[in-house]
Order: sequence, then C-alpha cells, then structure tokens
Amino acid sequence: MTRPADDLLAITRQALNRVRHETPLVQCLTNQVVANFTANVLLAVGAAPAMVDIPEEAGPFAGAASGVLVNLGTPHAEQRAAMTEAVASATAAGTPWVLDPVAVGSLPVRTALARRLLPQGPAVVRGNASEIIALAGTGGGGRGVDATDEVESAAAAAGELARSTGAVVAVSGPVDLLTDGERTVRVANGDPLLTRVTGGGCALGAVLAAFAPPTTPDAAARADRLAAAAAAVAVYTVAAEIAAEHSAGPGGFAAAFLDALYALDEETLGKRAAISWA
Amino acid sequence: MTRPADDLLAITRQALNRVRHETPLVQCLTNQVVANFTANVLLAVGAAPAMVDIPEEAGPFAGAASGVLVNLGTPHAEQRAAMTEAVASATAAGTPWVLDPVAVGSLPVRTALARRLLPQGPAVVRGNASEIIALAGTGGGGRGVDATDEVESAAAAAGELARSTGAVVAVSGPVDLLTDGERTVRVANGDPLLTRVTGGGCALGAVLAAFAPPTTPDAAARADRLAAAAAAVAVYTVAAEIAAEHSAGPGGFAAAFLDALYALDEETLGKRAAISWA
Amino acid sequence: MTRPADDLLAITRQALNRVRHETPLVQCLTNQVVANFTANVLLAVGAAPAMVDIPEEAGPFAGAASGVLVNLGTPHAEQRAAMTEAVASATAAGTPWVLDPVAVGSLPVRTALARRLLPQGPAVVRGNASEIIALAGTGGGGRGVDATDEVESAAAAAGELARSTGAVVAVSGPVDLLTDGERTVRVANGDPLLTRVTGGGCALGAVLAAFAPPTTPDAAARADRLAAAAAAVAVYTVAAEIAAEHSAGPGGFAAAFLDALYALDEETLGKRAAISWA
Repeated sequence: MTRPADDLLAITRQALNRVRHETPLVQCLTNQVVANFTANVLLAVGAAPAMVDIPEEAGPFAGAASGVLVNLGTPHAEQRAAMTEAVASATAAGTPWVLDPVAVGSLPVRTALARRLLPQGPAVVRGNASEIIALAGTGGGGRGVDATDEVESAAAAAGELARSTGAVVAVSGPVDLLTDGERTVRVANGDPLLTRVTGGGCALGAVLAAFAPPTTPDAAARADRLAAAAAAVAVYTVAAEIAAEHSAGPGGFAAAFLDALYALDEETLGKRAAISWA
Repeated sequence: MTRPADDLLAITRQALNRVRHETPLVQCLTNQVVANFTANVLLAVGAAPAMVDIPEEAGPFAGAASGVLVNLGTPHAEQRAAMTEAVASATAAGTPWVLDPVAVGSLPVRTALARRLLPQGPAVVRGNASEIIALAGTGGGGRGVDATDEVESAAAAAGELARSTGAVVAVSGPVDLLTDGERTVRVANGDPLLTRVTGGGCALGAVLAAFAPPTTPDAAARADRLAAAAAAVAVYTVAAEIAAEHSAGPGGFAAAFLDALYALDEETLGKRAAISWA
Repeated sequence: MTRPADDLLAITRQALNRVRHETPLVQCLTNQVVANFTANVLLAVGAAPAMVDIPEEAGPFAGAASGVLVNLGTPHAEQRAAMTEAVASATAAGTPWVLDPVAVGSLPVRTALARRLLPQGPAVVRGNASEIIALAGTGGGGRGVDATDEVESAAAAAGELARSTGAVVAVSGPVDLLTDGERTVRVANGDPLLTRVTGGGCALGAVLAAFAPPTTPDAAARADRLAAAAAAVAVYTVAAEIAAEHSAGPGGFAAAFLDALYALDEETLGKRAAISWA
C-alpha cells in the first residue's frame, strides 16, 4: 500500500504551495554572517523572516511563530540565552524548531549548547556530515564549517541521532540524505556553487523551519515531517541547480538563486526534483 | 502664495544634489540583518555610512554626524545602551535622528525602548502602518516586520504621533504617506519587489537620515523637514521602480536597486516622482 | 642579484595558486556590517572563512587557523574579549594575524584596543591613509571609515609603523602602498567602485590573512611576507578592475567582483597586475 506520504514529488509540490499561500513566520536565531542571506532566502521562497533573538523577546515570539531556526554559527552570550528561551517556548507551544549545529564538535561553547538543546526535541537537525557525526558523538568534528566527512559516511550517525532525539536529521552534501531513524530520503539536486556562497547551508535550515509541520508526537506526524523536510531540501537544491545554469560565479549565483527560488513553479520542480526513498 | 517648500519636485531634485555634493555622514545603529544592505544603499545614494553602535563611541560620534538612524530590529543590550547615548548626544547637538520602530507593539524590549526614546524628539519616525499605529498607542502591533495594516488606516495615528512628538512621520506602503501633523505628502512610487528584499524598509530609514536637515525647533524648519523626508522617499522608491523594470526576481532586484540609486539623475527623478501634497 | 622575492609578478601568481590548492582556513573577527561580504570574498578566492569570534572559542581556533583577521569596525565588548584571546593564541602558535584599525584615531574604544593589540606583532596592518597615520601616532584620525588623507602622505607613517611593529603595513587607495619599513611595493590596480561597496577595504584584510605565510621572525620571512601581502592586494584589485568593466553600478559590481575573484587565472593576473618595487 502506498501511503500519501510516499509520493515525495507530490508532497514537495504541495509543500511549496502551502508555504506560498500561508507565508509561515519563521523566527531565526542565526549567525550574523548569514542573517541577511537567510532572510532573503525566506522572502524569496514565500515565507516571512523575523530575526528575533534577544532574551525576553525570543521566548514569546517562538510561541507564536510557525517555525524557529536555531543556528549555532556565532553564538554570542546574549543570543545563547535567547536560544534557550526560544527552544523552551517552541517546545511548549508545539512550534517546530530546527537545530543547525554549525562547527559543533571542535568548538566548546557551541558544543555544550548543542548538547543542552538537543534533548528538547528539535523537529529537524541539519548539518554537514562532520557536524552530524560530531553531534551523534561518534566523531571528532570538522575544522569549522567545512564538510570534511562524506555524506554517506554519516548515514549511520544520522540514523542514531534521529532515533535518540526524535528529530528528522538532514545531512547536506552533493546528495542530501534525510532520515527519521527508520526511513531515508535522498535528494540528488544542487550545485557546488552553493558551497561557494556563505550561508548556502545555513539558509537551508531556515527553509526547513518554513516547511516543517507543527510538532506532534505520533508516528504519522514523524513521517510527514520527514517528507516535508525532504520537500524543503528539494525546493532549495533545485533552485540552486537552475541558478547555476545562469551564473558565471558565486556572486551572480547568489542573486540568481534568490530569483530561482522566487520563480520556481510546480512544473519545473516536478521535472527536476531527484528525490527518492533511500 | 506658493512657498518654496511647496514645490516638492524641485526640492527632491535639490535634496539629491545636496546629498551627492555634501556626502552626509550617517551613523547607523541598526539591526544586524540589514546593516550591510543599509550601508550599501547609503553609499549608492552618495552618503557615507558609519555603523558606530557601541557605548562610549556612539555618543561622541552622534554629535559629529550629519544624521543618525536608530532602528530597533535586533536591539541587543549593548546596542540599546549605545542608542540611548547616541540619541542624547544627537539631541544636544541638533543632529537629526530617525527612529525606525521595527516590530514595536508586539515585542516588549523594543517597545519599552521606543517609548523611552520617542520623547527625545526624533526628526523622523519611519515604519509600516502596524508599527506607526502601535507606536501612537492606538493599536496592538503587527506580527513582526510585516505590515498588517494598510497605510491609509494609519493616517490618523501618524498625524497624532507627529503632533505629539514634533517628528515627521513616514508610513511605508504601496503609496507612502508622510506628515508633520499639519500637512501630508503622498509618494506613489516603488515596487512590491522592495518588500521581498530584507531591509527594503530599514534602509529607507538611513536615507531619511541622510536627507534630513539639521534639527531646529521653528515651524519653517518643520516644513523643510517634511519636504526633505518626502524627497528621500521619492528618490528611494523611484530607484526601486527603475530597478524592478530590470529584474527577474528579488536577487537581481537588490543589485539593480543599488545601481539605480547610484545612477539616478535629476531628469529621471523629475519625470517619475509621483509626489504630491494631499 | 635578483632574489626570488624580487619577482613580484611570479610571486603573485604562485600565491594565488597556493591559496586555491591549500584552501587556507581564515578566522575572521570582523565587523558585522561586512562579515557576509568578507566570507564570500574568501570563498571566491579559494580560502575557507570561519567567523569564530566569541571568548573561549576564538583562542583555540586561532591556534589552528591558517590566518586571523582582526577588524575593529564594530568592536562589541564580547568581540573585544575574543580578539584579545585570538591574538594571544595566534602569536603563540605562529599564526599570522592581520589588524584592520577601522576608524582608529577618532573613536576611543577601538583606539585603545588597537594600541593594546599592536605590540603583539600583527603580520600585516591594513588601513586607509587616515587610519595608518592615526595608528602611527602622527595624525588625528579620520571621520569614520573614509580616507581623508592621501596614500602617499601616509608613506612615512606606514614606514615608521612597520619598523616599530615588525608588521607589513598596507595603505589602501587608488594606488596601494605596502612596506615592511625597508622596502616598498606599489600596486596600481583597482577601481573607484570598490569604495562604493561596504567592506571593499575590510574584505581585503581577510584576503591578506589568507595569503600570509606563517609567522617567523627572520628577515627573509619578512621579505616573503611583504611580497605575499602585495600579491593579495594585486589579486584583489585586479579582480575589482575586471568587475568594474562589467558593471553599471555598485550593486552589479559587488556580484561581478566575487565572480572575477573566482575566475581569475594566472594569465589575466600576469597581464594586468601593476605591481612594482618602488
């Protein structure tokens, strides 16, 4: 029997439509290097960004937002306090939140913060292979934001992390891998130029938050969450692919990527998305 | 009798010329999401940006700057202290300062800060309809940076706010409305793509600071201030209109907007600016 | 006798190749206005950026990085602490670090910080003429990030600063001047549009860190350091020159500049670089 959630392409198209019609409000507690690009990516895809990341505001806002991104790229003290507040509030309200453990493993402050936040139930954890392996406790971390491990070598760690946290785990790379600990989706779109623009990975975390359904604990919801996350990755990487065809380098690519996200239609998405179970 | 200040088009052309020849130094205490775009907008229009926003530096600098922008988008504690210092110093020195009350109304920290700064006499308050209504105390605020109210529904609140603070109040939207509490100007330029680039509204606050004349209390000065603010809005939104004609989406638009601001000449401005007393 | 270090053009080509093959990891403690552009410039030229700028992480990271940039543009308290930590660690490890004394002279907090960091031995100091003069203690500083002094008028101050600190001093302007206190290099490339993009100078500091060889105290190393710094300036300003030929204004220029850095090949560099012992 094919469940509705099995047709990844249909789900991807519906998910993009939903974002465009509902304009989900995505709160980003993210690093200051990529905040601008992240907000522009959300606007281009049809969501509404709000970078509310100070204590006393982050908590209340997370309760009302459609999704929350917690990206550990430049975790200043005040932002760490805001993250703690936002995650508690999101968890209480059923707001899905995405954890992006940038450079976790090799750097002590963010690693400790990630360990503290992780048990509170992110809807999605997104990282490169090194970060996912480090977060799962099976490796030593990368040298910063670089992916020094290959995606497939992180598959086991991703599965463990998904099972131990209840999160969908998304590993970014040439072929993206997503798992809820039981089933796995691969998305074979994208372009290397995306790695030559700072925030190419970080902004995907925000799009994952825009696409995430509200958090509920049952198994069907988890399957939906995996499919929605895969949809976000497909939309994002198909747009990257289109942008690369019109770009001479990373400068033009960044602009073309926003334009491609903005213009992406269901038909193009259907033709290009290379998204499949396992 | 037609006073010189009545010919808005002539004033707009002169104001742009003045900025290009005098290169006003605009101090920005703004949110970290849009700081880069804001600085680039100021450079493109012919002003000089300086993002001096730490305590002990913000105050002295505000005394020497041509204008100051105080944007409450990400008001971290250290920046809040710097804003308080800069506003006190700007007020003492007669430096015009612009208040952009981003998301005021719904978020407690910035709302309290806005209420504290407002009595100190901003030259201009710029916001969307929701923010102006919230600041005037007549509404409940928006859901972040979105404009959930229409511009015209904020006209009464804008007038009240202008009269109670002495500021020119600029309400951004499809047709921008500006008032000093007695007279009103409308500017019917712009393009929806400006709302798809983060900082599309915030950077206008910086341009308003670049165009603002020094603060003096008399009535003639207030009329000049209204006309200068309207000139800033016209220059900004005419450039947006031109940029949109050469853009396929928000990525290309952001670059084209900077190029259009940079290239804008008096003749084009004169032909396109839809600016009128209303 | 012509030493290998004398052939600046050959060194420039080799230095670009080295960066592209070794992907140096450059830690940036920089201002939040230009962090995004700086990271994108590093990625475009072939280096790997890491904006690790919080206490307890900045120190350990600086020991492992290939180079460190310390840019004083928005020196918030937490970042100042991280800078102190990073410089100590870099010095101990022999990691070359670059000091960009943005607006030093006129602003008290950063001026005090610069005076504290300077004796710890930066590999390179990069600034405009005003900043270099202010840092050398022979002038009053500029009015922000503007260059109010001409490059050549800063030549004496640059030489003194180089001799007193052991750093290579790079003065940015229409013709860039670099000196180690004994010899001088001039680079006559670039385009005025680079001054119309925020971070046009700041990002060069990061490229200088990417090109800098490990710090060793001997005289031959110092000559290499001067040549490597000149190579960084040549690569950067030749790319700016190419970008300007394809740009209608600063918005298009910023993207074209990243594309030009990304695409720059040895042949083009060899034909265009106007780099000479002077």
